[in-house]
Amino acid sequence: MNKNEILIYDTTLRDGTQGEGVSFSAEDKILMAQRIDEFGFDYIEGGWPGSNPRDMEFFRMMKDVQLNHAKTAAFGSTRRANLTVENDPQLAQLIEAGTPVVTIFGKSWPLHVTDVLKTTLDENLLMIKESVEFLKSEGKEVIYDAEHFFDGYKADAAYALATLEAAREGGAEFLVLCDTNGGTQSKEFSEMVRRSMSENPGVAIGVHCHNDCGLGVALSLIGVEEGATMVQGTINGFGERVGNADLTTITPNLFFKMGYALHCGESLKNLREFSISVDKLANITPNKKAPFVGESAFAHKGGVHANAAKKVARSYEHMVPEKVGNRQRILMSDMSGSSSVAMKAKELGIDLDEKSNQMRAFLAKIKELENNGYEFESADASFVVQIYQHFHDLRDDFDVVSYRTISEMVRDSDTNISEAVVKLRVENNPEIKMTISESSGPVGALDHAMREAFASHFPALKSVQLVDYKVRITQTGMGTDSIVQVLMKSSDGKKSWWTCGADGSIIEASYQALCDSFRYKLIIG
Amino acid sequence: MNKNEILIYDTTLRDGTQGEGVSFSAEDKILMAQRIDEFGFDYIEGGWPGSNPRDMEFFRMMKDVQLNHAKTAAFGSTRRANLTVENDPQLAQLIEAGTPVVTIFGKSWPLHVTDVLKTTLDENLLMIKESVEFLKSEGKEVIYDAEHFFDGYKADAAYALATLEAAREGGAEFLVLCDTNGGTQSKEFSEMVRRSMSENPGVAIGVHCHNDCGLGVALSLIGVEEGATMVQGTINGFGERVGNADLTTITPNLFFKMGYALHCGESLKNLREFSISVDKLANITPNKKAPFVGESAFAHKGGVHANAAKKVARSYEHMVPEKVGNRQRILMSDMSGSSSVAMKAKELGIDLDEKSNQMRAFLAKIKELENNGYEFESADASFVVQIYQHFHDLRDDFDVVSYRTISEMVRDSDTNISEAVVKLRVENNPEIKMTISESSGPVGALDHAMREAFASHFPALKSVQLVDYKVRITQTGMGTDSIVQVLMKSSDGKKSWWTCGADGSIIEASYQALCDSFRYKLIIG
Repeated sequence: MNKNEILIYDTTLRDGTQGEGVSFSAEDKILMAQRIDEFGFDYIEGGWPGSNPRDMEFFRMMKDVQLNHAKTAAFGSTRRANLTVENDPQLAQLIEAGTPVVTIFGKSWPLHVTDVLKTTLDENLLMIKESVEFLKSEGKEVIYDAEHFFDGYKADAAYALATLEAAREGGAEFLVLCDTNGGTQSKEFSEMVRRSMSENPGVAIGVHCHNDCGLGVALSLIGVEEGATMVQGTINGFGERVGNADLTTITPNLFFKMGYALHCGESLKNLREFSISVDKLANITPNKKAPFVGESAFAHKGGVHANAAKKVARSYEHMVPEKVGNRQRILMSDMSGSSSVAMKAKELGIDLDEKSNQMRAFLAKIKELENNGYEFESADASFVVQIYQHFHDLRDDFDVVSYRTISEMVRDSDTNISEAVVKLRVENNPEIKMTISESSGPVGALDHAMREAFASHFPALKSVQLVDYKVRITQTGMGTDSIVQVLMKSSDGKKSWWTCGADGSIIEASYQALCDSFRYKLIIG
Repeated sequence: MNKNEILIYDTTLRDGTQGEGVSFSAEDKILMAQRIDEFGFDYIEGGWPGSNPRDMEFFRMMKDVQLNHAKTAAFGSTRRANLTVENDPQLAQLIEAGTPVVTIFGKSWPLHVTDVLKTTLDENLLMIKESVEFLKSEGKEVIYDAEHFFDGYKADAAYALATLEAAREGGAEFLVLCDTNGGTQSKEFSEMVRRSMSENPGVAIGVHCHNDCGLGVALSLIGVEEGATMVQGTINGFGERVGNADLTTITPNLFFKMGYALHCGESLKNLREFSISVDKLANITPNKKAPFVGESAFAHKGGVHANAAKKVARSYEHMVPEKVGNRQRILMSDMSGSSSVAMKAKELGIDLDEKSNQMRAFLAKIKELENNGYEFESADASFVVQIYQHFHDLRDDFDVVSYRTISEMVRDSDTNISEAVVKLRVENNPEIKMTISESSGPVGALDHAMREAFASHFPALKSVQLVDYKVRITQTGMGTDSIVQVLMKSSDGKKSWWTCGADGSIIEASYQALCDSFRYKLIIG
């Protein structure tokens, strides 16, 4: 190992799944493990075989999966009190998992030894030492996680250090100091890591932090500065309570800002995509404000910064966004003037004259639509449609005369169906075409009916599919009725785009977003 | 000022509004300023009078508003190059704002002086000194924000320090070191703050950090440890890119963890409510994972932690949640066993026997519903309804036989209306009652029609109103059609609650959430 290389230990599949709303099937976990390996992290903690059948199933399935670089680890606890290691069922399961690495956690905090484990402090030291020894004798690489290390240290430093000594004597390859409850501050953290390093020369130290005080990333980096060579964390900071230390923030800091070597260094240029793919698998909405990888991480609004950016490139950015697979965005908002609109249009490949009267009228129009509930920040494709309509005089080749949706539930006959009727004219043909379609819900029915009506005239629309859909209520702030805002994601199999609609009716708002999606597809061809 | 007291400088209304999706009217800003004052922060930066008419309007309106403790600050830049302070229109606007405090920023980074301001390094020093002097002579308390201080220091330490000296010589009360681009790491930050302190004895130092490297909070706290007595930040970390340092994380760290005095110390027990009220005003969904104040901040799932919590109270929490107005939550999820369900029920005031067969059947039912798109984590009221149905054999006193919604848009007549027809029986009365109602959208129409049918039999339902509504698509993971998940928030004017529904149709999913909302209200009375 290079002296300056830091090992990244991913526990998304174990500690990460303790997070609210995070849940993976065994199959998801296999996909994730392959993705993490491909990205280049060094260790993948797959689960706790003793805690649930899903994790056991994962390890069984992993036996047939070949990874390129990462080592898989099974997680568990030290043996139970007053039981021999040979007779401990949980240790047996850890071995059965068949991973090259086993990570076991033990208690550092006297209170937890006496009140949770209900055993003696001496027995706990034996439990740690013997469990590590046993796993070593079974040929495993053993990582020792010192649970509640920092709280334990504050309660009884000598005992907390004695638990590390027990693990070291047992032969552990890594002693990992865990801030399990996430309450430790940077100064004390720094001192305790330093002390642990000096008491355990020759053994590699790792850190495992949580973000409860908003310091998960900072402590992890401080740990490395104090000499730790392993960082445990999760992708996107998944994890119990507010989450574990976020590896998507830690890795670019270590690599770009602090100059450490990482096996995944080369992959960081795909960091944003990696982060999004994990959210997708977990069905979690990506955090726009995530450092480095969030959609907003390099987004600017407001005149001064947008203006300065034209004079000194990147003058309000701490790094080149492309290094982490991200990009600069100029935001549309009622604070932004023509210069931001022009920059935004340019970003989308459209050149506009900032100074024109047309631009002034356009700004007024966008502002009014935003007041009425539209959200162009999140719906680039609707913004492009607005530009084309305003500056290129884009007119629809279709003309929806009316639509109607009917949703019906009849309990006795177990009926639950929606139908939509659409009447439209196409390309100035005076004939009114009427289509009808059914689906499980009204938006799907409307989508099908419109598509059917259009398809023969606009074959390009055949490939368009509705792939995501979100609704929320926005208030106009004028004491009037609430407005339903719809954001719709469409895809043609190659590219995907977001459009928006807003109305008192969810059906009309969806219809608007649907029309914009079709218009956008006709523009891009 | 107490030696150990740290001053909190809030810039939510100025720097915060640079954040994506954050926008306040002048009236909103007035409400916010009053709320921040009441909470007990020390300074409120209201806006940049020179940059937009809305901020000017805010300061005009603020002249009639009396605050209890906080001082308001107007924000702006140093005078323009080669102009006298008396003739600088922007400085005139800062004075016209009529605030007791003026905060001006100046350039610390030679690159920005020469390439953005397009002036000389010496002229920039004069601009800083003279602008501060001028504002002092007008009777203002002057806070000097050294923009890009840390980047400037790295480029040319002597010059960056010279800009601080210029502000100090001008008479500034505070020199605030700004990590404008958010790229500074903790060690270098620490050293630069220390150096700035030692070069400017007798002047108070502040820090202003951004979260681009995930270190916004950590750096702010490190700044205080190095001797800074003012921290600038925003509520909920609003702000450009990934946001400013979050005051809802910084203040409890300073007060509870580090022992500093804060004027808002007493108010911290309402911190979560404060944080939520600001999100509400900004119409931003609260971040569940926010440290201290997030809905998940003290949420647990998984057997070990939930079990240990029964033995040692708070064994997996770094502090008592009530100190920041938060509470412990036990999460429902397919990982959780009967012990978590029992704890969750207890939290809601319901005692259940963990070991019963009934409990096993209940767990299986919840798990199946969750697989079908229900989300009880976010819909406590639906969970309560499930408990009552299962354990108390709760049966509906109403019986919806069928419903139908029709939404119609006819362009020529400008029609856009939804109607709902509901057929139901109430309290075993064989007679079928049929009601019809109109609204702008189908969900509102269904809500009205059902309420009308119920109201005479269940007067308690009259007070129930739909107050929020969210929709998203969840995948079943089985390759089948997508499922629409509806989360609905209702209120009876005193209490509010969330219910959920899931179906292929948005109407049916909404109907389910609506029924659960009515059931819940009938349970709580």
